[in-house]
Amino acid sequence: MNIVADLRALIGENAVLPPEVINERACGVWNPDPLQGAALARPASTKEVSQVVKYCHDNDLTMVTHGGLTGLVHGADAVSTDVIISLERMTAIESIDPQQRCAIAQAGVKLQAFQEALEPYDLMFPLDLGARGTASLGGNAATNAGGNRVIRYGMMRDMVLGLEAVLADGTIVTSLNTLIKNNTGYDLKQLFIGSEGTLGIITRLSLRLREAPLTRNMALVGLDDFDNVIALLKHMDKALGGTLSAFETLWQPFYRLVTTPPAHGRPPISQDYPYYVLLESQGADPDGDTNRFNASLEQAFEDGLIVDAAISQSESDCEAFWALRDDVEQIFNNGMVPFIHDVSVPVNKMAQYAADVQRELDENVGECELFLFGHLGDGNLHPTIRMAADKAAEPGMKKRVSAAVYEPMRPFNGSVSAEHGIGLEKKPYLDVSRSAEEIGLMRLLKGALDPKGLLNPGKIF
Amino acid sequence: MNIVADLRALIGENAVLPPEVINERACGVWNPDPLQGAALARPASTKEVSQVVKYCHDNDLTMVTHGGLTGLVHGADAVSTDVIISLERMTAIESIDPQQRCAIAQAGVKLQAFQEALEPYDLMFPLDLGARGTASLGGNAATNAGGNRVIRYGMMRDMVLGLEAVLADGTIVTSLNTLIKNNTGYDLKQLFIGSEGTLGIITRLSLRLREAPLTRNMALVGLDDFDNVIALLKHMDKALGGTLSAFETLWQPFYRLVTTPPAHGRPPISQDYPYYVLLESQGADPDGDTNRFNASLEQAFEDGLIVDAAISQSESDCEAFWALRDDVEQIFNNGMVPFIHDVSVPVNKMAQYAADVQRELDENVGECELFLFGHLGDGNLHPTIRMAADKAAEPGMKKRVSAAVYEPMRPFNGSVSAEHGIGLEKKPYLDVSRSAEEIGLMRLLKGALDPKGLLNPGKIF
Repeated sequence: MNIVADLRALIGENAVLPPEVINERACGVWNPDPLQGAALARPASTKEVSQVVKYCHDNDLTMVTHGGLTGLVHGADAVSTDVIISLERMTAIESIDPQQRCAIAQAGVKLQAFQEALEPYDLMFPLDLGARGTASLGGNAATNAGGNRVIRYGMMRDMVLGLEAVLADGTIVTSLNTLIKNNTGYDLKQLFIGSEGTLGIITRLSLRLREAPLTRNMALVGLDDFDNVIALLKHMDKALGGTLSAFETLWQPFYRLVTTPPAHGRPPISQDYPYYVLLESQGADPDGDTNRFNASLEQAFEDGLIVDAAISQSESDCEAFWALRDDVEQIFNNGMVPFIHDVSVPVNKMAQYAADVQRELDENVGECELFLFGHLGDGNLHPTIRMAADKAAEPGMKKRVSAAVYEPMRPFNGSVSAEHGIGLEKKPYLDVSRSAEEIGLMRLLKGALDPKGLLNPGKIF
Repeated sequence: MNIVADLRALIGENAVLPPEVINERACGVWNPDPLQGAALARPASTKEVSQVVKYCHDNDLTMVTHGGLTGLVHGADAVSTDVIISLERMTAIESIDPQQRCAIAQAGVKLQAFQEALEPYDLMFPLDLGARGTASLGGNAATNAGGNRVIRYGMMRDMVLGLEAVLADGTIVTSLNTLIKNNTGYDLKQLFIGSEGTLGIITRLSLRLREAPLTRNMALVGLDDFDNVIALLKHMDKALGGTLSAFETLWQPFYRLVTTPPAHGRPPISQDYPYYVLLESQGADPDGDTNRFNASLEQAFEDGLIVDAAISQSESDCEAFWALRDDVEQIFNNGMVPFIHDVSVPVNKMAQYAADVQRELDENVGECELFLFGHLGDGNLHPTIRMAADKAAEPGMKKRVSAAVYEPMRPFNGSVSAEHGIGLEKKPYLDVSRSAEEIGLMRLLKGALDPKGLLNPGKIF
């Protein structure tokens, strides 16, 4: 069997890369190691994906699907015996319907390219995340991506109306529903969204679009007390009547980091508050929205929820606020080694959880810094720990850090992955968040859809 | 084997009804025929549900789950050999968390009872439908209920954070996630939501709550042209910045029916327009919301989208508007026989679809009246046909009417069930909306989760 030659016979000479050319690619955006694989197939259509998958199925070859490779949990890692199926040539936006407010796109379309294609129609696809320029829509769906505006618009799962997938044996299931309501039998798309390529390969998507907002109001506020953070979330969500589009929380150490040189940002308000919240509201009423946003903030002052605020006066103020929140790379900037995490905890347990993580780090890790920030409106926190390179290289350090972050959430029914997924990275901690019966049911599904275990083997469980 | 005695030994004497007592019950809210079954079990806990299911599984007995029995598609029909499992005693609301804004409830809780339990917390569960007083949360989830405010809040699927289900062999899978973001492996709840009791029995639910709105503005508007209905939807959705909570459309015959005696309602605006739209916006700004709603309507006037409007001045006006829309029983009021349907069609194909249905009725059904109304903001229409009793009794009439409603949607990729489900009623038309590969994948799932085919047998496919 000559895998490269066989696949070239199926989908064309240039569409298949041999191992020595695969090695010239990096493993991913966050991992510069040379990529390995038995072949890398670049099909240009669903039919070609199906042909490649059927070949692999008939020959018992394991398959790993590649989108934009921006994942953070080693969910797309491949080994030298895997056939890599990259959707990089499937980049067509096939239709945009401004009345039905949906679009059909191939899975390899980049998120940002898709966002930009909607602008002439005054429509918006609400998913947004830092990797927008590289991440693909298929990868967004396979990992059920979250991002900055989940509080208003939900996760990727909530934006997919239908999809097309290739099953492990090459069967094409086209389920490109464009309707908001469709209760005709099982909702098959749910199988593929968030299953990290282990149940099928998503080839096309039908996506729900929204009318583009006309206004944006933002504020960065300082708070004295974590209870006030929770109360502010409730207050603003209620007062803004459903138009609150971001509620990002920064603990003091992270705020100081991103507002102090060498960071580019400067502090819009004092660096002395224990908590900061970045608030954003999107609307469609240029006069009314700003009045209402400001009135809601004034009420929060009067109620003692916030003690200081910087309010955006322009779009560039908004961009500057977001730049602070997004300047996560300050954590890596001084040769220190970061350990990044992505968890959910009920908001009313979060202060306790944060204290528990700090105590675990003190007791079991030693010298390090803990930076806390995240999409608190969704209960999602990104605890990030940094330490000197020599300390990070100590045997078992990654395991000790992971234990400090994940073990304290057991009593709170937290999630070890709010949005990044499980991949290989979090497999050892899946049982923190899921019971033996749940994992058993996942295995049952995997066995039914991929009995040979060929799709993205070893990921999740 | 004595099924009643065996089940009584498991869950108690009074918890199990024998066939002669089952016969005293009606088949459902819409069907007064005596209910049949080998036994009717009324478990009081998930553990008891599991015990009943395991017994049935071990003895190859088919099972049908009963919630509020308000379904419209014969999805809960039982035969004399079925064991009926009614969740009527599982009515506990176990917790309400106003900070995390979620609640955990048993599946037998009535929707209205749940809505009312949230009022003291100023919270809301957005699902709402006419059968609220009888329908249960478990049934709402098993059928993925829709209702009046899907355009703003989504369907039941979008409100369920987690659930607990009993599988066909009695295994309990507890997956009561309370987090908005949780990407730890497969999203198992999706298997059970909308699968009409064929993959497992939902016993408990974790539900997402919203801050209760403080304001409501409504209008009933008249339009000249269906293109303007579509343009108005886009205009209002955009202008109200995401607070549009209902967009119900009534074609003239239905509007006349519900505003003319013997109906209680009177026409708020002339009966001479071809189309009417009932608009609702929910917000939290008592002054600003009304100004904005009215300004959006004025703009619609200026743009020529609407030609007449009645605007609510009070809560009782709002209730009167909804009463018109909900007075569907006028269709049955004069001894005529109704045929009710529930379809989705892309909004820009709906005028064509409506004309096609009328033509099919003229050609293949004969003397009858077509009433069109529905949740047009979601693309959901309820075409309802009525005719004289003797005509309705003609052999094959139901089939001819169904064909007139469902066949015209094939070219438009419509859905034969927007929200009611498939049950037994729409099985013959499932292939209008789903491909052979999709139905094949549904069968694969059914075979994996219920290999003996014991759960709600014969429903959906």
